[in-house]
Amino acid sequence: MLDVRYNDEGLVPAVVQEATTRRVLMLAWMDAEALQRTISTREATYWSRSRRQYWVKGETSGHTQHVRSVAIDCDGDTVLLAVDQTGPACHTGAATCFDMNPLVLADEEVAA
Amino acid sequence: MLDVRYNDEGLVPAVVQEATTRRVLMLAWMDAEALQRTISTREATYWSRSRRQYWVKGETSGHTQHVRSVAIDCDGDTVLLAVDQTGPACHTGAATCFDMNPLVLADEEVAA
Repeated sequence: MLDVRYNDEGLVPAVVQEATTRRVLMLAWMDAEALQRTISTREATYWSRSRRQYWVKGETSGHTQHVRSVAIDCDGDTVLLAVDQTGPACHTGAATCFDMNPLVLADEEVAA
Repeated sequence: MLDVRYNDEGLVPAVVQEATTRRVLMLAWMDAEALQRTISTREATYWSRSRRQYWVKGETSGHTQHVRSVAIDCDGDTVLLAVDQTGPACHTGAATCFDMNPLVLADEEVAA
């Protein structure tokens, strides 16, 4: 197993993708313990930088992420989860955290 | 347009997804200038933290990323690009930066 390279805060970004639709749902952060818990329980578990605590996705909302696969990237500093998402992924109620916020729409012309 | 929230280094992570296959190709980092260049040129442009310089994806390899859409997430601290990837996305020659490094395979049993 490749070593995961954590940043100066001991964290690695985790990109979360829905396994079936392949939508990118969100990005969250993990420390080594959160990653280990995610792998052993198969329930996505993150480190909340604002609350400074572990956070099992869906623990209060019920919008859990069952983890199908976990990969790390070529230089070991990003994690990719493929999950089965129950309910909306975003705390706003949107299906993904990116749904509401297009900066550039598909098929839009390049700005002159 | 929502404000992008950059980290203490002035950077935001950019998740890069292939528009057609929806594969997650890589994660890279952008500062405000890289994001602006990406939007105005429609060619994915990042900030290399190791080389401390802008990096137009594919500039030397030819493995460019034409940007179809750009979104930010609900709290403005992650960017998602949908791109048309020319050639492999990873410097290793793999199609994506996550191809070679499964930590947990799909359908693998949960560790007892």
